[in-house]
Amino acid sequence: VLGLDPDPAALWPTDRRSAGKAGAPGALTPAQAAAGAVLEHCRALIDATAGACVAVKPQLARFELLGGAGWTALETLIGYARGLGLLVIADGKRGDIDVSARAYAGAMGAGADTPFGRLDGLGAELVTVNPLLGRDALEPFVSAARAQRSGVLVLVRTSNAGAADVQDLRLADGERVWERIAELVDELGAGGIGDAGLSDVGAVVGATEPAHLGRARELMPNATFLLPGVGAQGGRVEELAAAFAPGRAGGLVAASRSIAGAYMMRGGDPADAALAEAERLRESTWQLSDRALHAA
Amino acid sequence: VLGLDPDPAALWPTDRRSAGKAGAPGALTPAQAAAGAVLEHCRALIDATAGACVAVKPQLARFELLGGAGWTALETLIGYARGLGLLVIADGKRGDIDVSARAYAGAMGAGADTPFGRLDGLGAELVTVNPLLGRDALEPFVSAARAQRSGVLVLVRTSNAGAADVQDLRLADGERVWERIAELVDELGAGGIGDAGLSDVGAVVGATEPAHLGRARELMPNATFLLPGVGAQGGRVEELAAAFAPGRAGGLVAASRSIAGAYMMRGGDPADAALAEAERLRESTWQLSDRALHAA
Repeated sequence: VLGLDPDPAALWPTDRRSAGKAGAPGALTPAQAAAGAVLEHCRALIDATAGACVAVKPQLARFELLGGAGWTALETLIGYARGLGLLVIADGKRGDIDVSARAYAGAMGAGADTPFGRLDGLGAELVTVNPLLGRDALEPFVSAARAQRSGVLVLVRTSNAGAADVQDLRLADGERVWERIAELVDELGAGGIGDAGLSDVGAVVGATEPAHLGRARELMPNATFLLPGVGAQGGRVEELAAAFAPGRAGGLVAASRSIAGAYMMRGGDPADAALAEAERLRESTWQLSDRALHAA
Repeated sequence: VLGLDPDPAALWPTDRRSAGKAGAPGALTPAQAAAGAVLEHCRALIDATAGACVAVKPQLARFELLGGAGWTALETLIGYARGLGLLVIADGKRGDIDVSARAYAGAMGAGADTPFGRLDGLGAELVTVNPLLGRDALEPFVSAARAQRSGVLVLVRTSNAGAADVQDLRLADGERVWERIAELVDELGAGGIGDAGLSDVGAVVGATEPAHLGRARELMPNATFLLPGVGAQGGRVEELAAAFAPGRAGGLVAASRSIAGAYMMRGGDPADAALAEAERLRESTWQLSDRALHAA
C-alpha cells in the first residue's frame, strides 16, 4: 500500500520547480499553489509505483492543512488512483457519535442523498476509524461499507510509541485494552465474512510491534490487517509473518515516507528509487504471504 | 456553546427555499448547492443566537460530507463567527501519530509555513482531539495551541451509549480507562495553567452521564470541560453542577440540534425559537456556575 503523506516542504524536486506561483500578480493563494504541487507530486508517485501496489492510502491530515483547495485536490487524486485500478484507503482515523459517524462514512465513502441531489463522497473502498467511542460509533461505518461491499479498518494497536499509554493498559481481567478492541472488531466483522474467509471489518496493527501480531491474529482470524509503520517508523516486513496467517490478502503492508523519500537514501531519480523500494516491499510481502499460505 | 451540526435535509425552511439550484442549466453541483445552503443556515443560526453564546462548535463531519465546497464553506463560516467575537471550537476529534497530528493541529488552528507561503488554518481557538493514540499523539496539538495561547479539548468520557465499551473498561488497578485518560489530560495541562487557574488542556465530558462529572473534576481540577449532549442526546444542564466547581469558565455547555430544531418543539419562527432555547440554556448554566462560585 502506497501511503500518500505529502509534506509541502519535501515534495519531489521537479514539483518544487513547477509550482511556487503564489505571490505573483494574479496568482494562486499559498494553499492553492501548495495543493497543486502536492497533487502533482502524488500523481508522479502513483505513476512511478502503481505496478508494485494494490492500493493508495492518503493521510487526510496533509490535505486538510491545505484547506478547501486541499480537499479538492484529494478528490482529484482519489479519482486518479481509482482510474488506475488501485484501491483507496482514506486514512482519516475518524470516530464520533452515530449521526456524525454516518456523515463521516458518507464523506469518506459513497456520499449521501440530500434535497440538493446526490453528494459524492471521496469514494474510498476502505477507511480507517477510531474505536474509542465504542460499538455504536463504529456501526455506521460498518453499515455504510457493507452496503457498498467495501470495508472498514479499525485502529487496534497503532504504530507509535504513545500507543502504549492507552491501548496497552492492562484490564481487570488480564487483557489489554487493544485486545478488547480486537474482540470488538471480530464481533463487528462476523456479519461480513466473504468467500475468501476475510471479513469487511479489518484492523490497523502497527508494524513496529511485531510481538503483538500473533495475538492480534488469534483474536481476529478473519480480519484484514493494515500494517503501517514499515520503513520510516522502524517496522520491517520480515517481522510481520504472523499477520498473514489466513492467506495472501490477510495483510496490507503500508509505507509512505520510505517510498517517497527513497531517492534520498538510494540516490538517483525519485521515481526510480520509489519504484525500487516499493518493489522490494512488495517482494518481501509476497514471500511472507506465500510462506503463510503453504504453512496453512 | 452553539453546536453547528447542519443536516442538509433539515435546514431552516427559508434556506431550503433559497437554495436548491442544483440541476438547473449552468447550475451548481449538488455539493456546492448544499454547501451554500448550509452556510446560509449556519449564519442565520449564529445571527439569531450570538447574544446567548460564547462560542460556536462546528461538527466537521457535516462539512466534509460536502467535499471541497463544504470545507470552503466551513472556512467562511468560521471567519464569520470570529468576526462577531465568538470563539470557535473545531469539533473534529482528530487523533494520529506525531507528524500527522502536527498537520491536523495546523489545519484546525493557526496553519503552517510552507515553501508556497503561509497556509491559513481554520483558525479555531479550541479543537477536540482523540487520545487513543496516547501522549505523543496529543502533544503536537498541545504545543500548537500553547504557541497560540489557545487550547485543546481531549475526549475523556463521551456522551454516547457506546462510550461504555472502551472508556468505562475497568483496569487492573481499579480505575476505568477514562479516568486514566483524565490523569493524562491533567498532566498535559500542568504546563499551561493561566491566571484564572484554568489550563489550556480541557476535557470533553458528556452531559449524558452526570454521575461521572464529580470524579472527572477531581482528576482534572484545572481543566475546562466541554459538556456536549444537552438536549437532543438527553443531557440536562441542571445535572451538571459538579463540572463548574473551579468557577464560571470551568464548564462549556454545548447544544446543537436542540437549538436549531427548537422551532419544531416550540413552534413559531426558527430564529426566535433558537434564541429562546439558547437563552434558557445560558440562564441555567450561569445559575449553576454562580452557585459553584459562591460555594467555593
